[in-house]
Parts: sequence; structure tokens; C-alpha cells
Amino acid sequence: MALAEKKKIKKVVLAYSGGLDTSAIIPWLKENYDNCEVVAFCADVGQGEEELVGIKEKAIASGASECYVADLKEEYVKDYIYPILKTGAVYEGQYLLGTSMARPIIAKAHIEIALKVGADAVCHGCTGKGNDQVRFEACFAALAPELTVIAPWREWDMVSREDLLDYLAERNIPCSASLTKIYSRDANAWHISHEGGELEDPWCEPSKEVWTMTVDPMDAPDVPDRVELSFVEGELVAVDGKDFSPTGAGAYEALVYLNAKAAAHGVGRIDIVENRLVGMKSRGCYETPGGTVLMAAYKGLESLILDKESLKYRESVGHEFSHVIYDGRWFTPLAKAQLASAASFAEKLTGDVVVKLYKGMAQVTQRRSPNSLYSEEFATFGADDVYDQKHAEGFIRLFSLSSRITALSQKAAANAKKGS
Amino acid sequence: MALAEKKKIKKVVLAYSGGLDTSAIIPWLKENYDNCEVVAFCADVGQGEEELVGIKEKAIASGASECYVADLKEEYVKDYIYPILKTGAVYEGQYLLGTSMARPIIAKAHIEIALKVGADAVCHGCTGKGNDQVRFEACFAALAPELTVIAPWREWDMVSREDLLDYLAERNIPCSASLTKIYSRDANAWHISHEGGELEDPWCEPSKEVWTMTVDPMDAPDVPDRVELSFVEGELVAVDGKDFSPTGAGAYEALVYLNAKAAAHGVGRIDIVENRLVGMKSRGCYETPGGTVLMAAYKGLESLILDKESLKYRESVGHEFSHVIYDGRWFTPLAKAQLASAASFAEKLTGDVVVKLYKGMAQVTQRRSPNSLYSEEFATFGADDVYDQKHAEGFIRLFSLSSRITALSQKAAANAKKGS
Amino acid sequence: MALAEKKKIKKVVLAYSGGLDTSAIIPWLKENYDNCEVVAFCADVGQGEEELVGIKEKAIASGASECYVADLKEEYVKDYIYPILKTGAVYEGQYLLGTSMARPIIAKAHIEIALKVGADAVCHGCTGKGNDQVRFEACFAALAPELTVIAPWREWDMVSREDLLDYLAERNIPCSASLTKIYSRDANAWHISHEGGELEDPWCEPSKEVWTMTVDPMDAPDVPDRVELSFVEGELVAVDGKDFSPTGAGAYEALVYLNAKAAAHGVGRIDIVENRLVGMKSRGCYETPGGTVLMAAYKGLESLILDKESLKYRESVGHEFSHVIYDGRWFTPLAKAQLASAASFAEKLTGDVVVKLYKGMAQVTQRRSPNSLYSEEFATFGADDVYDQKHAEGFIRLFSLSSRITALSQKAAANAKKGS
Amino acid sequence: MALAEKKKIKKVVLAYSGGLDTSAIIPWLKENYDNCEVVAFCADVGQGEEELVGIKEKAIASGASECYVADLKEEYVKDYIYPILKTGAVYEGQYLLGTSMARPIIAKAHIEIALKVGADAVCHGCTGKGNDQVRFEACFAALAPELTVIAPWREWDMVSREDLLDYLAERNIPCSASLTKIYSRDANAWHISHEGGELEDPWCEPSKEVWTMTVDPMDAPDVPDRVELSFVEGELVAVDGKDFSPTGAGAYEALVYLNAKAAAHGVGRIDIVENRLVGMKSRGCYETPGGTVLMAAYKGLESLILDKESLKYRESVGHEFSHVIYDGRWFTPLAKAQLASAASFAEKLTGDVVVKLYKGMAQVTQRRSPNSLYSEEFATFGADDVYDQKHAEGFIRLFSLSSRITALSQKAAANAKKGS
Repeated sequence: MALAEKKKIKKVVLAYSGGLDTSAIIPWLKENYDNCEVVAFCADVGQGEEELVGIKEKAIASGASECYVADLKEEYVKDYIYPILKTGAVYEGQYLLGTSMARPIIAKAHIEIALKVGADAVCHGCTGKGNDQVRFEACFAALAPELTVIAPWREWDMVSREDLLDYLAERNIPCSASLTKIYSRDANAWHISHEGGELEDPWCEPSKEVWTMTVDPMDAPDVPDRVELSFVEGELVAVDGKDFSPTGAGAYEALVYLNAKAAAHGVGRIDIVENRLVGMKSRGCYETPGGTVLMAAYKGLESLILDKESLKYRESVGHEFSHVIYDGRWFTPLAKAQLASAASFAEKLTGDVVVKLYKGMAQVTQRRSPNSLYSEEFATFGADDVYDQKHAEGFIRLFSLSSRITALSQKAAANAKKGS
Repeated sequence: MALAEKKKIKKVVLAYSGGLDTSAIIPWLKENYDNCEVVAFCADVGQGEEELVGIKEKAIASGASECYVADLKEEYVKDYIYPILKTGAVYEGQYLLGTSMARPIIAKAHIEIALKVGADAVCHGCTGKGNDQVRFEACFAALAPELTVIAPWREWDMVSREDLLDYLAERNIPCSASLTKIYSRDANAWHISHEGGELEDPWCEPSKEVWTMTVDPMDAPDVPDRVELSFVEGELVAVDGKDFSPTGAGAYEALVYLNAKAAAHGVGRIDIVENRLVGMKSRGCYETPGGTVLMAAYKGLESLILDKESLKYRESVGHEFSHVIYDGRWFTPLAKAQLASAASFAEKLTGDVVVKLYKGMAQVTQRRSPNSLYSEEFATFGADDVYDQKHAEGFIRLFSLSSRITALSQKAAANAKKGS
Repeated sequence: MALAEKKKIKKVVLAYSGGLDTSAIIPWLKENYDNCEVVAFCADVGQGEEELVGIKEKAIASGASECYVADLKEEYVKDYIYPILKTGAVYEGQYLLGTSMARPIIAKAHIEIALKVGADAVCHGCTGKGNDQVRFEACFAALAPELTVIAPWREWDMVSREDLLDYLAERNIPCSASLTKIYSRDANAWHISHEGGELEDPWCEPSKEVWTMTVDPMDAPDVPDRVELSFVEGELVAVDGKDFSPTGAGAYEALVYLNAKAAAHGVGRIDIVENRLVGMKSRGCYETPGGTVLMAAYKGLESLILDKESLKYRESVGHEFSHVIYDGRWFTPLAKAQLASAASFAEKLTGDVVVKLYKGMAQVTQRRSPNSLYSEEFATFGADDVYDQKHAEGFIRLFSLSSRITALSQKAAANAKKGS
Repeated sequence: MALAEKKKIKKVVLAYSGGLDTSAIIPWLKENYDNCEVVAFCADVGQGEEELVGIKEKAIASGASECYVADLKEEYVKDYIYPILKTGAVYEGQYLLGTSMARPIIAKAHIEIALKVGADAVCHGCTGKGNDQVRFEACFAALAPELTVIAPWREWDMVSREDLLDYLAERNIPCSASLTKIYSRDANAWHISHEGGELEDPWCEPSKEVWTMTVDPMDAPDVPDRVELSFVEGELVAVDGKDFSPTGAGAYEALVYLNAKAAAHGVGRIDIVENRLVGMKSRGCYETPGGTVLMAAYKGLESLILDKESLKYRESVGHEFSHVIYDGRWFTPLAKAQLASAASFAEKLTGDVVVKLYKGMAQVTQRRSPNSLYSEEFATFGADDVYDQKHAEGFIRLFSLSSRITALSQKAAANAKKGS
């Protein structure tokens, strides 16, 4: 919008959180876009009830004509987190993609509201230096390219919380936001992220105040706990014997359960410097308690079931997919093709895994599966039928044949030289 | 040898450990291979002094004509572990390749002795179901394809420790080995592996007795410790301010230092089911205390220095290389090419990293580098020079252009249909 | 079988071609395996009628109790070639996998017959130095691991055609095979391969006599021809306006049509040195006339439809899959996962492509698609809606941001040094 | 510059071609950038003498203060084309990267002149929809981020040749450019590209007029020719017995020779739709006569020397690198790491290859090498020493072991079900 001719906007749907930024955006949109109608939209992806209480009233008070809250919690876990889990995607070796995974479903619900209310624009409150602007707008482009996208942080001149508070005060819009906020956080059912404050110096260890979702490992119980996860065809169906299948408590409740158990043991904290899609680095701390356990269990099950070449390839799919999802490319043929590969491998992923929780660690200690390539049946196949140690010689000879030929050729060439 | 015509063997060099298996192999070779001369060879790769004390005498007592002990410790860490570290290779997501990495250097030294003493065969005590037979023999094929390889475990009929003890007793060869040994272990400067016993059931959690190198996390100090590692161009040069550069205490001592510090905090234990090269799965427990810290620190430094596409590619090199080294393909053009890539990235890897040790965890908490892409200098470049938030709009538009075109095409096609 | 204890075999199904080798195998099996019953099995994968005429009589005359001929032509093209085509797999840059693709379907039909007739063994006539033994036996292991596999070429002592002819003559089994045969060939609907003779010297250009399926480009028409292929969701449905969909003439007839047209123009000849799975190199000449056109057309259509990252990934899937199919790993989770990815991309592959045929070349000259990302509609979107040239600046700035930061950091560091 | 505050520019170096666009840019720069001094820079990368004749005079006549012509021909072939050749990079299956490869060396020379003359800006004449703007500016960012980049096509309002001619006429600047130009072309020693005209419709076959560098295959000789290329460690040192090593005629002359010979046979034409880096597709025709032969020969040599896993990996390096070079990321750690891998493989690439040229085709027919894994020596190793057919059984058993275990597990599970 900064670059193109400004179109006349009649109605815009704003991704609204109730926080300071999006509260200020409501009046700003009306003042800068032809006194357009502003519809607030809030996605419930499990970020916590405290953020949602009274949000409709707040939106109206700030000048929105309506406020929609969409409960996406079950769909988020079932149709986004689970399929991604099957790819095994981890970004840059550590990041479990908690923020990235939530973006496509929020964008999709956002667009659905926009189409429903007949809006001609959508608006988000992401900054101009982050990934989320790209993720949201890439999804918008794929779903409703005809809608105008408004990104106030790339347009206005306000740069601080003070500017925003002044802006609201001038307009007599009530706001309970504080002047200072050390950390910038983003939460959903899968994780919470923390940036800012002392974290901006990567040579600085995070203080205790950074973490909000998990117990400090030093304060965690001195005795380990264990959690048992059961999967059927790659889907988590039970935890500690409780039914979390679609006909049971469901996927979202499974994650809530895992989060509680893992958080109590300080599991799931990471502290990383990562490469943003927009070309710069950032330092973030993340807490993904339940997700860390779920990922460990899933990979523990894979270790029992996938053969060497399959596991190697699944890992490369996950490696590629971690960038696809991090970059917001969910609604693309590429994402679809990689998810199809992962789903294919997942068909065999049935079994149980026990994860031990202790002082920040989540370690797989037990795993079993009817599809195990290391099954108890195996020993009974008998040596003759399955594996004769003498087969190894032939294997080795052919496996190393090209090395042998190379060495023999070199010797032959060397001898030829000596001879001449 | 089982398959080909047996050649007449005059002198064979045996990879000798002083244990039960290789003690029995000495007389067996002489009896089964034309009363050949058996030269014992023992590689010191940091497996511990207790294994090396009195080993020459033991070899002679078992019937060897000579016994060579090669001190490979410094070369192992400097020329094998460090270059591999630069690839970031981790096998199947967890295994730090402790056994695999030692095989090529042992094989090379083995062949050097064989050529020096004019042997016409080499012999190892690996079983016929494992990876090591492949790794050793693949290296032999690349280095000295003209030598005959003898693998007694694929030839003889003995199957138990009892068989071996009886075999030695019948020949009046002294042996202090016990009748039962629960776990099969393999150690070097980088790690120790454990297999067997209750571990053969992957549904069974490892008992306390499995672990030998690290303190149980439950018994580790209740207060975290920190260790600072300094790298220059990808090489570890100092730890906690101590000089471990080539002109200082050296690479092996650095690892000894890191092992001691990390082991005291229970760091570096893993428990996995892995895919062997020979097509079956095995369950192993590994302890890699210092290596875990070193790898974490190296990757922590990378996170500060490598850009998004570079890090992604380095990860894929490491992923590929993990199989190359696991499979014993060190002396191949493929390994050389991948190491060249990793070495190229490593040229920029200069800086310091602090790793926090606590109850089994090793977590990077601080990192700094003159080559950081997230340097303190960065903030001072000023917004105009380096990053204008308004650039983001153009970036997003082009980044998502194909999604936009796809969506517009689909809409155009849908409209065309409606119209007709 | 050479290594394990020989089991008692009652009935064996032999992959029978009517040629010299498999004719000799029938009596050899009976003599060496307990006078077992030998059932001949012949797969019709489009290798040509001349090989199939009178084959049942020949099998019986050689001592088989029965002879089954399975018509696999349509299934081969539809369920094997088409799915593989979607991966874009080409082995080592050139080989269109003509022999490899036929192996899994033949193995599957082979096993089906074996299970139907209650055989306890299967037998093939592949040599011990080639890929086919691995491909067939890997499929057998996946489909019926309980069946014994007999591979006479790895067991008997015969080494030449003369040996085989003598063997048959001694037993009064009629055989019209000639004493000398320069080239070893293998044909199916997709291609024919040639090995042996002067081709064994890779410094020797193939003579005219090598080629059998295509016209010599020098003898091809002096005027180009064109062929138009139409695809719906990745499946070839029409060629030159003729209906070859499942409700039309079908997939096999499409290939017959393409073969005839392309062969007349000398299209599809390659001459390569390739890496066999068993570790050695071989030199082969291949003719794949219709396949070359089909692959070119498919990729031409992709070029119009797949975006940059999707095409890049599809290429990497094809690259991986070329080894999977070459190595005979069709019945594996890995193959399934890669095919799933390729099938996902293929969903959009609808459109027409014209390929020009001239003197050995097949070149795409025209392509169109309703899913084109380069559609005629595109121009009419208007600059503002889809692409503003001014967006490019922002894109470039972020795209090259890490290079810029790197350079600025280096300059800052250099200046700091000068200053000190 | 459109977005940031315009800086005051004193001296700018323009990449000048003598064509209409850059002729108009000279006065435009002076008028729009503070009457700055404009220095013309022209890179000779083998685009042909006709483009360089009188270029200095033309530049001065258009208002430039100076004009530098840099002869980059030898460096271009030796230090850019050859290293890239070793990666085997081909973009999207067909494009030999002729335009992409020239960009980094031109950008580097451009910056060198800019630093030498003390310029504060650089300027190029690329359009805002193409790849070249990104490639040049990405290189500028890596080499001299402190210089301002001016891209007139993204700034001014002129859109047609007529606009530019009027602009020059109004200023009395002589220009011999014609009003209409059907095709947009770009040439260097390696290739020439063609865009525009009827090519903008991908359903339209290119007319005869498109092609300028090669003979139409229909007009090419009716008799094939052959060319022999000799490589030492991956570098082309001789063609048809002529010395083109660094101490001979050199790399550039080798390419001139190959171009002449291949062009006469119509070799090297391609017609493709490609994905631009900026997110849109374009259709281009390219002629790369000598390059096509060189690439075919190099890969022919590889086929004799690289083992299966090495060749597979080299292919994946080339696949990745094709995007790196296409995208203009030459001056990055990623490019350096991939080139290091390719250079490592190339060390063994010594030998001779014969390529047959006929009616547009370049086909390898002969290849030999002292490092061949298919050497004439090989046959003489003897079966026992190198390959015993009986080894194949063991190989196959282990190679297919996981398939066998999978199948046996499934049967065991099925039987267990039946039993219960």
C-alpha cells in the first residue's frame, strides 16, 4: 500500500489481540483509510483465556464495529500440528516452529471472516522487521489476492509504546497497557516465544524472568516422572492411558495435558539465535513443553519402525519442510507435496513410547510397536531365515567394490609408471 | 575368505584389544591359517589406560610374535573428530558417531603396521552382525586391497564366551576374562557405547549399571556449572581460558577436560534404537559428555555466523555425512567432497560460546563472534543503510508472487466457467 | 542358497524367457533340486510378440510342467511408468530406467503365480554381476520372504553359451539358440537395452548394428515432425488428438503410438557408462523413443505450472527416486513416500505440449495449460495488482541483507583494527 | 533509492553497453542526480567485437566523463565457467546458466572501477522485472554495501523504446538505435539469450529469426563431426589435440573453438519456460553451442570416474548450485562451500572424451581415463580378487534385509490375529 496507489477502503478486518498495538490500529485505520469500517478478528489458538476475556468489549470500545472470536484450538492441533509433526520439522536444529505453525490457520480464518463480512482489506499488527508479516501476507496472497493488505507498522511513524499510548490518549480511547514491557511474547497451544530485553544481546544469559510457561529446571521435582504416549498411524490417540482420540478428549486436550506434565519438569526451554526469513538474525527464547515431549516420542517411535533409507529421507523432508513452514509457505504445492510424503511414512507409526521427564530433560526410554523392525518376534525368525553372518562378507565386498577398484587402479597406474 | 579359495597366509596383523575375543583369535589364526605368524596391533584412541596396561605381555602370552601399540589420540581428535564436527554430523538425529569416527584412523594405522611388517593379511574381531566389520573392511579395501581380510567371527563355530574360554583353557592360554559380561562396550576419547543385557528389549529402560562414563543426572550437582569454549576458524583453541591450541595442550587434552567437566553433570547420555548398515536395528546407549558440549557449542557459534541458506546447506551436508561416516566410507571421494564443504563454512567460525551444564543438560546460553551477523556493531549501521521496514512490502510481494498468480489464475478460470 | 543349508524344494516357479539361459535352467533345476517340479512363468511387458510365440510349447519341451504367460502391458504403463514419470526420475542424468521400471511388476506377478501354484521356491536367470538379481530378489524379499530364491548363475559352473548349448544337447533338449550372440539385450514397452560386444570398451563408438528399435538419425526424414501430447492431472490422455485415456485406447497403446512416431525420427538413443548397484560400472546403449518424448513433454508442462521452489523440490524427489527404482526398492516405504510427493505435484499437471522430432532430437516447442503460471490471463492482471517494478528494490534489499551485513561487519572490523 | 532519502551523488559508474537504454541513462543520471559525473564501464565477456567498437566515443558523446572497457574474457572462462562446470549445474533441467554466470564477474569489475574512480554510486540498466537487477545488486551488496545503487528502470516513467528515443532526441544526443527491436538478447562467450516477440506466447514455436549464434539443424551438414576434449583434474586442456591449457591458447580460445565447431552443427539450442527469481515465469531461447559440448564431455568423463554415491552427491551439489548461481548468490559462503565440494570431485577428472555432433545433437561416444573405475586394467584383476559372483547373494540378503523383516513381521502379526 505504501507503494501502490492507495485504494479506497470501505471495510477492513483487523487481526486483533486486545493489546496496545492493535488497539491503536483501529482508530488509525479509520483516520487513514477513508473512515472505513473496522471489524476485529481474534483467533483462539490456545494462547490462554486471559487474553480473550472481555476482548469483544475492548474492540468495540476502541472503535471496531464488530468483533469475531474464532475457536481454532482443535483444528490447529489436529490439522496443522499433527501433520507437521509427521514431517519431523525442526528449524535450524532446535526451534519447534511454535509461532510459524499457527500462522496459516489464523490467516485462513482471517480471510474467511473478511469474505463473510464483505471486507475489501485485511490488516495485521506485525512489525516490518519480522517473519510474521511475510507469513500472514503470503497466506493472504494465496487465499484472497484481491484483498488489499494494510500493515500499519510499515506505514505510520510511531515507533514506541509511548507513541501508541499518546495516540490512544489523544483520542480518549481507554487502554490498560503499561508504558514499559520488557519482553515481546507470542503464545499458542504449542508454545510461547520471548524476545527483547536482555535477550537482544546473545552474549547475555536469559534471566529467570524470561520464562513463563515452564518451571525452572532447578525448581522442578527431584524425582523423574514418566509419560506414555500411544500413536495410531502417526496420530496421538492416548497419553498415560487417557483417550485423546477424536472420539475421546481430542487433540487439543492431549496437548494441554502434555504441556502441564512437561512444564512441571522444566521441559521444553530453548535459547537460540535464528535466521529470520527477512535476512537478519534474531535471538529468541521459546518454551514448548508438551511439544518437546510429543516430538521426542514420535521420533522414538520412528526409530523402531522406519528403515535406514526411509528415516534418512524423512529427515530430509523435515529439514526442507522446516523452512517451508517457517517461511509461511503453507498454502503452496511444495508444502502439500512434502506433507504427502510425511503422511505416507506415518501410516506405519503405530505404537507406544515412554518419555522420562527430569529437570528440563525429556528422554525416550521405552518404545514398542506392532510394526517394529526390531520386534520381539524377530529373534525367533531363526538365523537361517533372516540373517546369516556369512552374508556379511558378500555384502562388504560389493559395498566397498568401488573403493577396491579405485585402489587397484591406482596401484596399477603407479606400477606402470615405475616400469616405464 | 569363507567364499574364495583360502590363500596361504604367512603373517597376519590382528587388531588386538586384550579382551577375550581377540585373545582366542591369536591361537585360532595360527591353527587355521598355516601356522602363520600373528602380529598384534593395538590402537590407543583414548579408550583408557586400564585397557592398555600389560597388553604387550598379554599378546605375547597368547601367541603373538610382536605387539605394536599406536598412540593415535591427538591425531584422532585433530584430524578426524574436528573435521567431522565441522559437518555437524549426527546420525539419525541423536548419535554423535563415537564408534564410527574412530574406525578409519584405526584401520589406517592397522594397515600401516601390516605394510611395515610385510604381512599378507589383516584380521579383526568384529562380529558378523555389526557395522564395524563393514567399516574396517571398507577402509582396508581402499587402503590395501591386496591384503587378505580374516574375520574369525564369520568363520568359526564358537558362539559364546564359554566357547572362547574353553578354547583358551584347552590350549593353556591364561585369560582373566569372566564367564559372564552383561554389556558389550566400546570406548574411545569421544564416547563409550553400551549394548546387550536388558537393552536388547527396547521397551526396557536402561538400568543404572549401564552407564560408566557419566554421573547419573540425579546424582549430579544441584547447581549448574558453565563452560566457555573458544574457536578460531572452526577449531577449538581454548576452554575456560585454558589454551588447547596445537601450540598449547592440544586437541586431545581439550576433550579430556570437557569430558571430565560434562560427565560430572551427567551430560551426554543417549538411549536409542538405530539402523545398522547391515539392515537390522539395534538398541544402544551412548555416553558422549565432552562431545555433546563441543557439538552444542559449535552449533551455537554457527547460529550467530551462518546465514539462513548457508546453515540450511551445512545441515544437509551434515545429514549426508552422518551416513557416510556411520557406514565407514571415510576413504572415499564422497567423504572428501563433503568435508571440503564443511571446512569452507568453518573458515568463519571464530568466537566464544558458553554452555550451561545441569543435571544432564548442556545448553548454550551465550555466544559472540567477530563474524557475527548479529553483531553489536549492527545496531549502529542505522536503519537507512541496512534495513528499511518499507523494503518488506516489496520483498513480500515478490516472495509470494507465484501464490498470488496461482490464486488469480484459479479465480479467472472459475469466472470463465461461470460465464460460459 | 549357496550359503545356507539347501532346503528340499518341491516346486519352483522360473521366470522364463524362452532364451538359451532359462531353457537350460529348467533341466538344471530338476537335476539339482530334488527332481522338483518346474513351472515356467513369462511376463508380457511389451517386449514384442516374437519372444512370446510358441513359448508355452518351448517351456514344456524343456521340461516345465506348466507355463503361465501374464499380460502385464497395460498395468505396467499405467501403474508403474506413469507414477514414475511424475517423479521425473532419470538415473545419472540420462538413463530413463527402462529395465528397472519393469522389474517390480514382473516380480509381483512372479510371486503371485508362485503362491497360486503352491511353489516353495522362485528362480531367475539373472547373472551374478548385474542389477537385476538384486532388483528381483529385493522384491521377492518384500512380497514373499518365505520362498527360497534360486539363482543358477551364482551356483553352476557354466560360463559360456557353448556350455549351455552342450548342456542342452547332452539332454536332447531342442534349442534353436545360436552359438554366438554379440549383444545382450532386454526389451519392454518402454525401451530396449544393449550391452556387450564392442560396447565393453567405453572408448569405442557403438556400431550401427547395436541399435534395433530406432531409425539411425542419419536415415531419419529430412523434415521435422511434431507430436502433441495432452495431460490431465499428470496422466497422458491424448496424443495427436487420439484418445488414450483409460476409457479410450489406454496407456499401453499410447506408448506404442509414441514409440512408432519417435523411432522413425531416431529419437531416444543414449550411450552411457553407468554405476551398477553392485559396485561396478557398465556401459550400455539404450533406446527409449516414446519415453523420451513423453518425459520431455511432461517436463515441458511442469515448466509452465510448477513454481521455482516446487520444481526444485520435484527435481530432488526425482533424483532420489531414480536411485530407489534403479536399485529395485519399489516395495518400500521410501518409494511410497516419494511417489506420494510426486503424485501431489502432478495434480496440477493438466495441459498440452508439442514436441518437435528431427534427426534424433525431441524438443518441446509449445506448451499451454489452464494452470499455467505464465497464462495469457496474466498480462491482463495489470501492473498494480500483481507486480510493481518498485517492489523489486525491497525484495533485493532483503534478499541480499545477509551479504550486506557480512560486508559491513568486515569493514567495521577492519576499521577497528586500523584505529587501534 | 526510491524509498530511502535520496543521497547526494557526486560520481556514478554505469554499466554501459552502448545500447539505447544505457545511452539514455547517462543524461538521465546527470539530470536526476545532482548533475553528477557519470563514468561508463563496459565489461568484455566475449559478447562480440561489434558491441565494443567505438563504445568509448559513444559513451563520451552521450555525456559520460570517461569510459572503461575491461577485458574479462579469460578470467570469465577460467575462474567462473570452469569452477561452475565442475558443479554440473543446470537450471531447471536445461538452462546452462549463460547469463547468470557472467553477472558476478561483471559486478566485481564494476565495483573495482567504482572504488578506483572514487564513485559514490553504481548504476545498471536492468529492468525491474528480471533476474539481473537482483544478481548485480546482490553482488554489489556483498562487495561494496556503502555504495548507492541506482536502477533507472525502477525509477523513471519511460516504458518504451520510443520514450527513450524521444528522450535522447530532445537532448540532441545521437543514437543509431532503431525504433523497433523484436527480441531482447544478451550475449557472452558462453551463450546468447533471446526473449520477447512471438516467444512471449509459450504455445508459439520460435521462428527461424530468433536464433543468431548457431546454424539451423536443418541446414547443418548431413555428415556428423566429432570433437575430442581432454581434461586434467577437471580443467579442459586440449581440444582436437590443440593445447588450450593456461600455457597454451587458454580457456577463452578453447571456448571460441568449441563454439565455432558446435554452432556449425546446430548444437546448443534450447527453448524453455523458466522460473525467474522474482517470482514470475519467462520464456527464453538460448544458444550455448560450445558449452553444450563441454558440459556433455565433462559429464561423460564423470560417468567413467565417479562412483555411484559420489556421482549422486555431485548431482545434488549441481542442483543446489544451479539456483545459487541463477539467483546471483556467487559472493556468499554457500557458493564457496558448494564450489569446494565440486572442486574436490574434480581432482580425479582427468581423461579424454569424444563428442559426436550432428543436426543439433552432441552425444558422447567415447571416453577414457587413467582414473576410470571401468578401466581396461580391470578385467585383468581376475574374478577372485575383485568380484566373486557368489558375493552377490550376501549383498542382496543384507541390502533387502529390512524389507524381509517387514514382511515377516506382517505375516507374524497376521497369523497372530488369525490364531486369536
